[in-house]
Amino acid sequence: MDAHSTLAPPFETETWFNAEAPIRLEDLRGRVVLVTVFQMLCPGCVAESLPQARRVHAAFAKADVAVLGLQSVFEHHAAQGPVSLEAFLHENRIGFPVGVDRAAEDGDALPMTMQRYGFKGTPTTLLIDRAGSLRLQTFGHVPDLVLGAHIATLILQTGDAMAATHSGGDRSPVCAA
Amino acid sequence: MDAHSTLAPPFETETWFNAEAPIRLEDLRGRVVLVTVFQMLCPGCVAESLPQARRVHAAFAKADVAVLGLQSVFEHHAAQGPVSLEAFLHENRIGFPVGVDRAAEDGDALPMTMQRYGFKGTPTTLLIDRAGSLRLQTFGHVPDLVLGAHIATLILQTGDAMAATHSGGDRSPVCAA
Amino acid sequence: MDAHSTLAPPFETETWFNAEAPIRLEDLRGRVVLVTVFQMLCPGCVAESLPQARRVHAAFAKADVAVLGLQSVFEHHAAQGPVSLEAFLHENRIGFPVGVDRAAEDGDALPMTMQRYGFKGTPTTLLIDRAGSLRLQTFGHVPDLVLGAHIATLILQTGDAMAATHSGGDRSPVCAA
Amino acid sequence: MDAHSTLAPPFETETWFNAEAPIRLEDLRGRVVLVTVFQMLCPGCVAESLPQARRVHAAFAKADVAVLGLQSVFEHHAAQGPVSLEAFLHENRIGFPVGVDRAAEDGDALPMTMQRYGFKGTPTTLLIDRAGSLRLQTFGHVPDLVLGAHIATLILQTGDAMAATHSGGDRSPVCAA
Repeated sequence: MDAHSTLAPPFETETWFNAEAPIRLEDLRGRVVLVTVFQMLCPGCVAESLPQARRVHAAFAKADVAVLGLQSVFEHHAAQGPVSLEAFLHENRIGFPVGVDRAAEDGDALPMTMQRYGFKGTPTTLLIDRAGSLRLQTFGHVPDLVLGAHIATLILQTGDAMAATHSGGDRSPVCAA
Repeated sequence: MDAHSTLAPPFETETWFNAEAPIRLEDLRGRVVLVTVFQMLCPGCVAESLPQARRVHAAFAKADVAVLGLQSVFEHHAAQGPVSLEAFLHENRIGFPVGVDRAAEDGDALPMTMQRYGFKGTPTTLLIDRAGSLRLQTFGHVPDLVLGAHIATLILQTGDAMAATHSGGDRSPVCAA
Repeated sequence: MDAHSTLAPPFETETWFNAEAPIRLEDLRGRVVLVTVFQMLCPGCVAESLPQARRVHAAFAKADVAVLGLQSVFEHHAAQGPVSLEAFLHENRIGFPVGVDRAAEDGDALPMTMQRYGFKGTPTTLLIDRAGSLRLQTFGHVPDLVLGAHIATLILQTGDAMAATHSGGDRSPVCAA
Repeated sequence: MDAHSTLAPPFETETWFNAEAPIRLEDLRGRVVLVTVFQMLCPGCVAESLPQARRVHAAFAKADVAVLGLQSVFEHHAAQGPVSLEAFLHENRIGFPVGVDRAAEDGDALPMTMQRYGFKGTPTTLLIDRAGSLRLQTFGHVPDLVLGAHIATLILQTGDAMAATHSGGDRSPVCAA
């Protein structure tokens, strides 16, 4: 959690599910945001990361924590399009908003948000604090115990306290990853 | 396992993966056949039945047991087509042959093999004996302990050859340990 | 399963739980016998082997399969005595008979049945056929799929009665589904 | 987490394992303390709570979080004595300090710390903040996500901040339990 001086770059998305309108990170200021970056055909995402995102969505108050999915397709593009994703979300009972990372216009296999953030693959977990700073970006599974601690740490860093923390230096990490 | 007087009806399929040519049940005579009927977007199939089919494929001798998958799509047709299925099989490392149940020509949502057998949904497990008779058709998960026992029972029932084997002595071990 | 010409040696036991009288292997002739050799403080026994024995006890007909536990204590003797074992069996809801391997009279840490059979440690799984021959002796965990197949194989091997059964038709199902 | 105005009462113990001397809660002031109250023959404690305590012990910095076990025996007393417990801790590789709740002098089946705190059974989870106040007492399993959040919340409440929080009123709970 050492990236907190960087404002999380905006997402480039094509479509959103479980949302009335496209979701912009700036609309979520004031809340901690968990973003689970996945592909619907990534076995580790299906078995671990998306169920974990559902647990976070159920465990924390909506006023404190927003949960988003972001499908960043970098392989099997034809198999993971919006029609497939919609059915997948329905069958897996995923009720939080899920965006689709926008395909690169130059034909690059990596979609735009993936390129911008430098995701190493899926699953990737992002945590964004109440002020919009990117605080965690991890490739692979994060244990529930550690993720719960990270989220609670960010929940408690509110407003002025956060500014002081940020101007004064880093808090030491609360957990070994 | 009370359906053994019925020869398993032929499958109607559109495509096969992990096979050089379409597989017909009569080509598998002499072997016990496990068929895991699934849909790639059925969570219970992904979490339980297909991993179980992989375990059966690994545990039993190929000369005794053939393992097949059959995708019988009765919902989310556009999301579970051959392009999607091929990527799914690759990502989930499914190496045994998988056929695609043929869509009904009259527009019925249920594909032809599903109608013919009366599958109640997915996952469904079929066991066919060495002589081609349907011996088990179960909707929902079958515990490994029970499935292993059913398969071994059918392995030992080898028609005329069986009597000879049994009078002559023991069969060699049925499973890899 | 290549040890079938050897009659399973008798157990030397001190006490039995869940049994009205000491159980002798010869009393179980005609049934397949699963013996789970364990220690109550062996984590793998508690997490895997004893729950598996409970599943076998529930899945197969009592007329076909007998399930026994045998506690063979070779370490932490004072911590795994009969008083402790009785409480352990109660708390873990183990309802099949469990015997206590008899301590060696010469002070050897290994109890007598363990020495006689050459158990390499716990958990160890034994399978004895209807005729009393030892057919499987495995140290470590046996997957349910493989154990189910071994048990069904032995259920079907019924000496002279088997040939008659097989010439006359199919056996009835071997497991509860 | 609404018990924070109450200083955690002292433990009454008979013996400690994995500790050079008896541990008193006041010696741990300045650190968050997780106490897993268990019995070695309680299946839920063995399968879930003690492994969770090991995960907490591994995940958080020792300077921030102390992990203790407390065996509060209220049944099967003869089976769960110190000799048995020592072997159990060794076999289950529990490396944090574990105390034994002191038996009641009046012959009551409930040990003294259990009576003092009103534990409803095992497993019970306690969280004590850096100032020594009891902040959580829960009977049954606490999910890792929720426990991680509780611990991180208490880690961040340090010294003056905690006093302010306590004098000013409660923070609202960070998680739904």
